Amino acid sequence: MHLHVGCTLQFEAQDNTPVIFMLRPRSGSGQWIISEEYEIMPHVPVTEFTDRYGNLCQRLVAPAGPFSVRTAATVQTNDTIDVAHGAPFVPIEDLPDDVLHFLLPSRYCQSDQLGELAADITATVETPGYDQAEAIRRWINQNIRYEYGTSDASTSAIDTAAHRVGVCRDFTHLGMALCRSLNIPARMVVGYLHELKPMDLHAWFEAYIDGRWYTFDATQTEPKGNRVTVAYGRDAADVAFTTQFGPMLLNTMEVWVKAAEQ
Amino acid sequence: MHLHVGCTLQFEAQDNTPVIFMLRPRSGSGQWIISEEYEIMPHVPVTEFTDRYGNLCQRLVAPAGPFSVRTAATVQTNDTIDVAHGAPFVPIEDLPDDVLHFLLPSRYCQSDQLGELAADITATVETPGYDQAEAIRRWINQNIRYEYGTSDASTSAIDTAAHRVGVCRDFTHLGMALCRSLNIPARMVVGYLHELKPMDLHAWFEAYIDGRWYTFDATQTEPKGNRVTVAYGRDAADVAFTTQFGPMLLNTMEVWVKAAEQ
Amino acid sequence: MHLHVGCTLQFEAQDNTPVIFMLRPRSGSGQWIISEEYEIMPHVPVTEFTDRYGNLCQRLVAPAGPFSVRTAATVQTNDTIDVAHGAPFVPIEDLPDDVLHFLLPSRYCQSDQLGELAADITATVETPGYDQAEAIRRWINQNIRYEYGTSDASTSAIDTAAHRVGVCRDFTHLGMALCRSLNIPARMVVGYLHELKPMDLHAWFEAYIDGRWYTFDATQTEPKGNRVTVAYGRDAADVAFTTQFGPMLLNTMEVWVKAAEQ
Amino acid sequence: MHLHVGCTLQFEAQDNTPVIFMLRPRSGSGQWIISEEYEIMPHVPVTEFTDRYGNLCQRLVAPAGPFSVRTAATVQTNDTIDVAHGAPFVPIEDLPDDVLHFLLPSRYCQSDQLGELAADITATVETPGYDQAEAIRRWINQNIRYEYGTSDASTSAIDTAAHRVGVCRDFTHLGMALCRSLNIPARMVVGYLHELKPMDLHAWFEAYIDGRWYTFDATQTEPKGNRVTVAYGRDAADVAFTTQFGPMLLNTMEVWVKAAEQ
Repeated sequence: MHLHVGCTLQFEAQDNTPVIFMLRPRSGSGQWIISEEYEIMPHVPVTEFTDRYGNLCQRLVAPAGPFSVRTAATVQTNDTIDVAHGAPFVPIEDLPDDVLHFLLPSRYCQSDQLGELAADITATVETPGYDQAEAIRRWINQNIRYEYGTSDASTSAIDTAAHRVGVCRDFTHLGMALCRSLNIPARMVVGYLHELKPMDLHAWFEAYIDGRWYTFDATQTEPKGNRVTVAYGRDAADVAFTTQFGPMLLNTMEVWVKAAEQ
Repeated sequence: MHLHVGCTLQFEAQDNTPVIFMLRPRSGSGQWIISEEYEIMPHVPVTEFTDRYGNLCQRLVAPAGPFSVRTAATVQTNDTIDVAHGAPFVPIEDLPDDVLHFLLPSRYCQSDQLGELAADITATVETPGYDQAEAIRRWINQNIRYEYGTSDASTSAIDTAAHRVGVCRDFTHLGMALCRSLNIPARMVVGYLHELKPMDLHAWFEAYIDGRWYTFDATQTEPKGNRVTVAYGRDAADVAFTTQFGPMLLNTMEVWVKAAEQ
Repeated sequence: MHLHVGCTLQFEAQDNTPVIFMLRPRSGSGQWIISEEYEIMPHVPVTEFTDRYGNLCQRLVAPAGPFSVRTAATVQTNDTIDVAHGAPFVPIEDLPDDVLHFLLPSRYCQSDQLGELAADITATVETPGYDQAEAIRRWINQNIRYEYGTSDASTSAIDTAAHRVGVCRDFTHLGMALCRSLNIPARMVVGYLHELKPMDLHAWFEAYIDGRWYTFDATQTEPKGNRVTVAYGRDAADVAFTTQFGPMLLNTMEVWVKAAEQ
Repeated sequence: MHLHVGCTLQFEAQDNTPVIFMLRPRSGSGQWIISEEYEIMPHVPVTEFTDRYGNLCQRLVAPAGPFSVRTAATVQTNDTIDVAHGAPFVPIEDLPDDVLHFLLPSRYCQSDQLGELAADITATVETPGYDQAEAIRRWINQNIRYEYGTSDASTSAIDTAAHRVGVCRDFTHLGMALCRSLNIPARMVVGYLHELKPMDLHAWFEAYIDGRWYTFDATQTEPKGNRVTVAYGRDAADVAFTTQFGPMLLNTMEVWVKAAEQ
């Protein structure tokens, strides 16, 4: 499908405020950026760099006063996600070097403390690999309540496992922590999802199984395609859409994902 | 200035032909990509990767028959290039590690064989550094004749120094080879230039002086700004707009660079 | 000084256990590896890769039974660390792209929650930059009690700020979290330190000030030189000497750092 | 086999001379560095960095006067190289992104001009892939005469194809250029080879076939194992053992490769 995606962020900065945005999707496996726009008001100098995960990051200093960013893209996406029941676990010794990183515990994914829960959830799974990650995804979907305002920037997988409530970011952290505790590499994805309700920027995860990354979204009963990846990382500490160094309020935020007429 | 830049390439492939394009500019120091489009006809799967120099490369297999690519971007550029007469040479021991690479001879820049010519050209320069690179640039501008059809894909700096004729690519190779022979790091830039006549994709070089890269364009008497970098590399072997692996003819090519009304 | 450093690790694995070691120091600014040894018993195939931080990592599968690793190196080090009272804070907009990463909160360094403490500690510092980091270091040295067995693998900077007790790893996490909360980039260093008592593998941190990294060690009243860096990272999640994927006991560990006769 | 390898280089510098050495082997697939030494006389500050190909490079400024470097390593190597007759060609569209680079022409490998020769040499090969690379290797071994002093630093694959004489470096350049002209990725390896006669630093190449790199050495009738890789690159422009920026003579050079008693 061709999707028009984008967002507008309106800030009010009290003082000159250095900011890093991560808002520019890149063409990659599964998505092709047909066109793209990126606008900043008032106009200030911006530079762009690639971080350790290959994400495009924009640096600037927002001046005191109102400040807004608008990005938009038309992206070709896949209508469905790949599903591979029975796809086998990759023994750790066979993982590519650059995937190993996604086995480690991280800020919001204390995988070393969630092994027991993961073992329980996957107790009846016969084939290690895809079916474990899918059992985890389904368990989260059925056992964690989705509710705005129940978590904040410090909420981690341990908290979500305990309180059984959260938003997409928390579902994702828990899913990754559980996968990693079973030695399945997992990485966070932030981006856009078609028909998300209510519309917002979204987060889900990918697990490395049978030699490639598969998509898992614990917020949906039946995970759907038409996703646009904006950034990959180990967890939310790596992939904030906005990282600001000073007092700057986000007054309004609008996000859109629309099917293009073809 | 805001520039609308872009190109259309129309090919005829005899058979399925793997191709790598390097046609997507990135935001970076000196340019900001406001918007961008990239279209392929007929539509085939494309993936994108970042090469060793940070350039965005697009991979695809062109099917037999007519095949076209159209890219366009609106880019904010600087109206002038920075000039720094007297800016000092950076001693080799002080160069950043990742700049050293641009001191070495390469496919089209046999810097090890051009030291004598470089010494002659810069004999009267008092301050090593910017003034040497500028003397080289001016010498090429005044002593090498610009003429289409006088060089081909195998022409190197040695050839151009001997025959004293060539196009932007040859001027650039010679400029880089001469700079490197004086231990000034030099890298090739390919991209768009406002008001280039006749309009075409263009090439120039940058030299590393006084802790940063400066722009040099030997094809112009007075080098001008409003440039859009598409790719950086050691020489033309690294930065071909199109690398094809099979018989595919480029039938037509259109390039445009227009000032945007603001 | 020339130091002989090294360690022997003796494990007992219950089953084939994939392991990643980070035990090979690299030559870099401030240290030169004169010679080096790395021995594994029983001998199994090992591969080596470079992680996202440039650390050399060794991968292998430890067979069931006793398993040991011995590494040793002779390294030229500096007798003192550089001290720069008054060296200025680098504004965020002037930080190199690859340093920005070290401003973010991470697994064990919740810098977003420690701003108030950092402000208190540095309230009387007149010049932002080195003197802030040094005030933090000194405060930790004077206010956190060093005691083995008071913390574990899940202890983070928040915990250490609350309980005021810990070991080198905890001192380091707290120091980094406090620095980052003041927008001073901080990275963890693990390695060897001459005359450490009792001898062990050690951890300290570096802060990016005035365009370079400076060494800070909160475990010492007067920080000393003759350090050998084995790995850099954002916090202990990145720089474990041993990461094992299965049940394997570390039975004994010996570490040595001796001045070489010259 | 365990090999003791190493070299001593003795220079005489007329003036302070910046130098880059590429003399430190790294553990990797097929070799494990058991121990290593690196000595410089007189002692000067040295820093080390990793280049675009992952090679470890040492930077220093050699002072005026005599200057020497001695490196040694004990390395576990394989007694034989892998051979895979019939292993299939990898279609370009299936090559990993970071292998594509090794398809391009480079300073000493004008693959675009050697397609006809490659086609002749491999005319009777039935299965594209390994058998083509092996036919090229054998053809070079049988048709190019090995003779010291017949080539120099500017000799390229075209020259060697024409004059049919050269040394290991030239054999390697020609082998790579011919492979690349058939769209088989090829990279240069420099390092040590057990029982090389006369003993010297050596060069050979690897070709990417059936999803991995295979070793080819055109200087030997029957290629042998027990090789130690010091560096990889596109051709000799990337992998010089010594790159110096100033007048410095190499007075003597000693290279050794000895089987360790075990």
